[in-house]
Amino acid sequence: MSEITLDPYVSRYATRARGMGASEIRALFAVASRPEVVSLAGGMPYTAALDYDAVAEVTDAVVREHGPSALQYGGGQGMPALRARLVEVMAAEETAAHPDDVVVTTGGQQALDLLGKLFCDPGDIVLAEGPSYVGALGAFSAYQARVLHVDMDADGLIPEAVEDRLTQVRAAGRTVKFLYTVPTHQNPAGVSLSVTRRLALAELARRHDLLVVEDNPYGLLDFKGEVRPSLRSLAPEHVVYVGTLSKIFSPGIRVGWLSAPGPIRDKLVLLKETADLCQSNLTQFVAERWLGTQPWQAQVAAFRELYRERCEAMLSEMAAELPSSCTWSVPTGGFFVWLRLPPALDAGEMLAKAIRARVAYVPGSAFHADGQGTGEVRLSFCLPPPERIREGVRRLAEVLREEVELVEAVYRGRG
Amino acid sequence: MSEITLDPYVSRYATRARGMGASEIRALFAVASRPEVVSLAGGMPYTAALDYDAVAEVTDAVVREHGPSALQYGGGQGMPALRARLVEVMAAEETAAHPDDVVVTTGGQQALDLLGKLFCDPGDIVLAEGPSYVGALGAFSAYQARVLHVDMDADGLIPEAVEDRLTQVRAAGRTVKFLYTVPTHQNPAGVSLSVTRRLALAELARRHDLLVVEDNPYGLLDFKGEVRPSLRSLAPEHVVYVGTLSKIFSPGIRVGWLSAPGPIRDKLVLLKETADLCQSNLTQFVAERWLGTQPWQAQVAAFRELYRERCEAMLSEMAAELPSSCTWSVPTGGFFVWLRLPPALDAGEMLAKAIRARVAYVPGSAFHADGQGTGEVRLSFCLPPPERIREGVRRLAEVLREEVELVEAVYRGRG
Repeated sequence: MSEITLDPYVSRYATRARGMGASEIRALFAVASRPEVVSLAGGMPYTAALDYDAVAEVTDAVVREHGPSALQYGGGQGMPALRARLVEVMAAEETAAHPDDVVVTTGGQQALDLLGKLFCDPGDIVLAEGPSYVGALGAFSAYQARVLHVDMDADGLIPEAVEDRLTQVRAAGRTVKFLYTVPTHQNPAGVSLSVTRRLALAELARRHDLLVVEDNPYGLLDFKGEVRPSLRSLAPEHVVYVGTLSKIFSPGIRVGWLSAPGPIRDKLVLLKETADLCQSNLTQFVAERWLGTQPWQAQVAAFRELYRERCEAMLSEMAAELPSSCTWSVPTGGFFVWLRLPPALDAGEMLAKAIRARVAYVPGSAFHADGQGTGEVRLSFCLPPPERIREGVRRLAEVLREEVELVEAVYRGRG
Repeated sequence: MSEITLDPYVSRYATRARGMGASEIRALFAVASRPEVVSLAGGMPYTAALDYDAVAEVTDAVVREHGPSALQYGGGQGMPALRARLVEVMAAEETAAHPDDVVVTTGGQQALDLLGKLFCDPGDIVLAEGPSYVGALGAFSAYQARVLHVDMDADGLIPEAVEDRLTQVRAAGRTVKFLYTVPTHQNPAGVSLSVTRRLALAELARRHDLLVVEDNPYGLLDFKGEVRPSLRSLAPEHVVYVGTLSKIFSPGIRVGWLSAPGPIRDKLVLLKETADLCQSNLTQFVAERWLGTQPWQAQVAAFRELYRERCEAMLSEMAAELPSSCTWSVPTGGFFVWLRLPPALDAGEMLAKAIRARVAYVPGSAFHADGQGTGEVRLSFCLPPPERIREGVRRLAEVLREEVELVEAVYRGRG
């Protein structure tokens, strides 16, 4: 495993692969990381778009003005000045927060891990969209929680379906620890929860005393610049909000955070200290100064436009090239398109063939805890430039046409 | 809890405090962090000693030459080039390793947390020196393992005592998951395991098939520049080695690592990905370049001399000022002196009084999982300059003299 540096999202998939061994999948994706392969698999933001003179200005000022502090240990909750800046980031999506409620974490992923550690006992139930973020499934299942999926459509999670699941599980005498959701530009489906449903979900959380974990990595990357009310803003006492700078600045600084009701926050600070003592002060200072001295909102607007263009390249090429029996989501923002394959195709089985055809994706089963999603695929448009995306879609279309022909031949043979 | 930024070591103590509530202890240490108090409590290295022109040179080159990669996600095992440098750091203590065996973690603390997560089920036993590192006790107990202490003396852990404990626990049908030890310049006791005992412990690990977790944050900070054979070098198949750059470069970059037998390493990489996807690439690049382009061994030698001088200031002032019924360890290196108070004194009860006298320490019970250590104290000499250390010891001596008088008066009253 040593010398292969996989996209961590892809790597997470490899550990959840069914059928194939994890090492086999890792080997496959190691091939997929070769330059001749168009990877529509990863979830890596296009960090090359940042202004590196500005970044260097920030890091230099941090080291020269705050060196001994930046290179020292910090507090378990995170740097107060940074927490105040993260509150400003939340304010850009009209979500009120106080620096006291914020805990800085190693990306959003550590927030999910700490929540799993705090809440999940073996056999507990966590509800989540189907499909859901692979890293969340991994974090909760590491504490032996069981994820039950709830249906979603083009308007996101269906509140009635949440209520049905909840009632059903509670009637069976089991405990639902929380609902995990990515309401905006969901990973992997690309869709956003409608405002009506946000209101319904907030009401449902209050009525059923249901804790909601709202994961919001992509919220600011809306292709129309639209802002939706966060669940945290609608039901603050029932929602733990998870944010990250990974998609609006840099994943390489590993600065995420959560904003939680007081008693939960206190416990999470203690768990954070147990997990790694404290966040890197150096990267916290860098994040604080980036947000405080650089035009970060203009940078977010530039990212938004860049990803919108890439998404459009992907969607238009899909419309032109994919077999007519394919359907897919139309992203409101974020990084991903969710593709449903023609009937009888298996995305996992098709992956090796796709990689031979020099295109990679993540099979849909990675995003389900229950073996569903075999006929589905996550395509990402965040990293490759538009022309490469189009080329990748054409290669995938070719593989799909061959597979469809094969399936039809088999059916004709049977008929 | 929000605005108080505690030394994370002290903060860990606060969460383990017995008798007083954690919030009470936090409040006490918040007072202790005022500038008029000499803190002999924390474990923060003297980062002000670094050359910040050199650090700025490193960060600037990283951002300008590797910006898009440094600000991107990395692989779960850590940057291959950094892992190769960490192998060089281990070589400076004559411990052979291969970059493939190394997993980069968020300080040594995360390595301990991941080991707890991998090995510890509720009720499992972990053996450790008594006293032992407070962060390790927290990490293992978070997975509901029970720590049993093993006696140590001026030559470190006593191998016969390890064997007795092991036999005893196994005879009772319980599982010992591993022995956790800081063999060199131990935190908190300041002593080092003798070479003879290292050989005996390695032999014991092989004979009893006992896994050893060797935590080595202070190894290179030997006051005489002495190098001792690591347990990992003596019994590689039975030892997981935990290292960190926190004490020889910077804790603010949060770069630690572990070096483990292959099957354990593979599982730890997966757990690392679940915990936070990957290490900060920015701080990994900084660490790699620091080790690769700067005279890091000269810096370590400078730190060694600086801490030796501070340790000597502490020891000579203790000899001159403390009541004759006190005894203490003589550190071979590292950051800490372990002080045994005169009979009938309780370090926890005395803490508020000490802080009123403007000196802080960590009571010994923090370093025991079983309530022992009430008559003991950890004193650190890493952060304050020598004159402040002397002043702190004088203040502590004054408190101790008063306490001893009080105890004697009580005994006289009884007699």
